[in-house]
Amino acid sequence: MIVESVGEGVTELEPGDHVLPVFTGECKECRHCKSVESNMCDLLRINTDRGVMLNDNESRFSINGKPIYHFVGTSTFSEYTVVHVGCVAKINPAAPMDKVCVLSCGISTGLGATLNVAKPKKGQSVAIFGLGAVGLAAAEGARMAGASRIIGVDLNPNRFAEAKKFGVTEFVNPKDHNKPVQEVIAEMTDGGVDRSLECTGNINAMISAFECVHDGWGVAVLVGVPSKDDAFKTHPMNLLNGRTLKGTFFGNYKPRTDLPSVVEKYMNKELDVEKFITHEVPFSEINKAFDYMLQGASLRCIIRMGA
Amino acid sequence: MIVESVGEGVTELEPGDHVLPVFTGECKECRHCKSVESNMCDLLRINTDRGVMLNDNESRFSINGKPIYHFVGTSTFSEYTVVHVGCVAKINPAAPMDKVCVLSCGISTGLGATLNVAKPKKGQSVAIFGLGAVGLAAAEGARMAGASRIIGVDLNPNRFAEAKKFGVTEFVNPKDHNKPVQEVIAEMTDGGVDRSLECTGNINAMISAFECVHDGWGVAVLVGVPSKDDAFKTHPMNLLNGRTLKGTFFGNYKPRTDLPSVVEKYMNKELDVEKFITHEVPFSEINKAFDYMLQGASLRCIIRMGA
Repeated sequence: MIVESVGEGVTELEPGDHVLPVFTGECKECRHCKSVESNMCDLLRINTDRGVMLNDNESRFSINGKPIYHFVGTSTFSEYTVVHVGCVAKINPAAPMDKVCVLSCGISTGLGATLNVAKPKKGQSVAIFGLGAVGLAAAEGARMAGASRIIGVDLNPNRFAEAKKFGVTEFVNPKDHNKPVQEVIAEMTDGGVDRSLECTGNINAMISAFECVHDGWGVAVLVGVPSKDDAFKTHPMNLLNGRTLKGTFFGNYKPRTDLPSVVEKYMNKELDVEKFITHEVPFSEINKAFDYMLQGASLRCIIRMGA
Repeated sequence: MIVESVGEGVTELEPGDHVLPVFTGECKECRHCKSVESNMCDLLRINTDRGVMLNDNESRFSINGKPIYHFVGTSTFSEYTVVHVGCVAKINPAAPMDKVCVLSCGISTGLGATLNVAKPKKGQSVAIFGLGAVGLAAAEGARMAGASRIIGVDLNPNRFAEAKKFGVTEFVNPKDHNKPVQEVIAEMTDGGVDRSLECTGNINAMISAFECVHDGWGVAVLVGVPSKDDAFKTHPMNLLNGRTLKGTFFGNYKPRTDLPSVVEKYMNKELDVEKFITHEVPFSEINKAFDYMLQGASLRCIIRMGA
C-alpha cells in the first residue's frame, strides 16, 4: 500500500511511503505498547465490531450517501482506504508489495509464534499442529531457528507433501493411531518434543499440543483462535513437572515496530514468502479467493486490485 | 549434615564436608541434569515409594534384623543416614546448619519459584496465593527482586501480620469478596498483576492465580502440589491474550549445582532464613513438630537431634 496523503498530526509517514496495513495496531502510547513483552495495544487491538474511525466514530466510505463500514482497522478490499496511522507499518520501498503483503497477518503470526515465543534452540524438536498457512509459517520459523526435527500434525494427509517445502520432517495423522497423539509424539521423541505450536484453534489439538512437550523444559504455544465456549483442560502436574504454556497473537510482533524487520528477512532471503502464495485472482474474482480458502486449496491468494 | 564416610566411586565429597540432604536429586548425567532448564533428574527425581538404595535395592537401616525403609531419598529423622551422593549438596562449612537446613525444601521451593521462574522485574506487582512457608518464601523472592507491590492471598486473615515481615504489602481474603478473587486483583492493579505464584495446591487457587495476571505479559507459576484428580481449566483466550502459565518443582533449583549459592545468599545477608524458623523441638518431641505444622502454627520447626 502506498500512502496517498496523511491527516493532521501524522509525522511518521508522508505521501509516497510504502506501508503494510495491519489488522491490529500499535499506538506506541499505552501500557502494552510501552511493554517490551506485549503487542496487545489497548487502543488499536483487533476489533471486528468497530466499523468506524476512532477520532470521530464515523466511516470514511459511502455509497449513494449511505456509509459503508470499515473492516478490522484496514478495509483493504479497496483501491483506496483510510486507516489509523497506528495500523500501518512503514516498510522498505524496494520490497515487492504483491509478495510482502502476506506478512501482514497469518505468515507473521506463525513465524513470530515460533521465533518470538516458542524460541526453539538449534537442534531441538518442534511439533506443529495444523499445516495451513499459519502452521507452515510456524514450521518455517522452526527451520530458520535450526530445529532438528519438525513434526507436522494434521488430519489431512495431503498436507504433508506441501509441508516438506516448509521444513516439516515428519508427519503424524492422529487418525492413524488409536491412542492420543500426545502419546504418539512422546514415543517418537523419547518423552516429548522441546517445543510445540498449536495452529488450528481446535481445543483438543491445544490440549495435545501442550501435553506432547517434554517435561522439565517443554514449551507449548497456542496460536489458533478457539471457540467461545472452549475450555483448556489439563492435569496441573503437567505444569508442575516443568512444562510451560503460552499463547500469542500476531506472533508477538508489534506491528509498526517489528514488521519492517520481517520484510527485511524476506529481502535478505532468510525468509521465502513466495512459497506461501499459491493463487492469484483479479479483484473481479475475489469470491474465488474465499472459495480456495474455505476448500483448503490455497495457502495465500493474492488479489490484484484494478483488474 | 556432616559427611561421615563416602562409598566407592564418590569423588566429590569427603568425610567432614558439610552438606544439605535434598529430597530430590541430581545425577548430573541424565538429559534433565544436562539441560540448563530442568531440575527433574530422571534417576533421582523425588520418589516417595522407593524405600531402598538404588545400587542394590536394599535398605541401610534395620531394627532387630528387620529392615526400616528409607524416606524420600534422605531419611533425615536420624542421627546417621545413608544417601545417594546425588541427594546431597556440599555447602559452605561456615554456614550454621541449624539455620540453613530449612533451605533443603520449602524455602528454596518458594524462593526459586519467584527468582528462577516467575522472574518479576524491578517495580512489578506480584500476587502470592497461600501464605505458608512456601508462599512467604515466594514473597521473600519478590521482595529481593524489587517488586513494587506484593499482594498476599489467603483464607486466613491471621497470616497477614506475619506476611508483612516477608515483604507482603497488601492482603486479599477471597472470603471478603462476592466475586472471584482474580477479578478483585484485576481491579486493584488496573488489569492484573505482572506475576503470580500459587503456593496452596488448591485447584481453584491455581485457576485464580493464572487468571489474575495481566494480559500481554503476565506470568503465573504453579508451585503447590495438586490432588490426583484435579483438572486445571481456563478459557484458551486467556492464553492467546499473552499470558504465560508455568509450573515448577523445588523452585527450579538443581539441588547439587544451585543449592550452595542459596546458602551463600544467607551468608551474604541477602536472604534472611531465621524468620522462617518459628519453632524448635528436641527429637524426643518430634510429634509436636507435626502438630505445629498441621495446625498451621509454625512456618518451620527445627528438630534438634540427640536431645
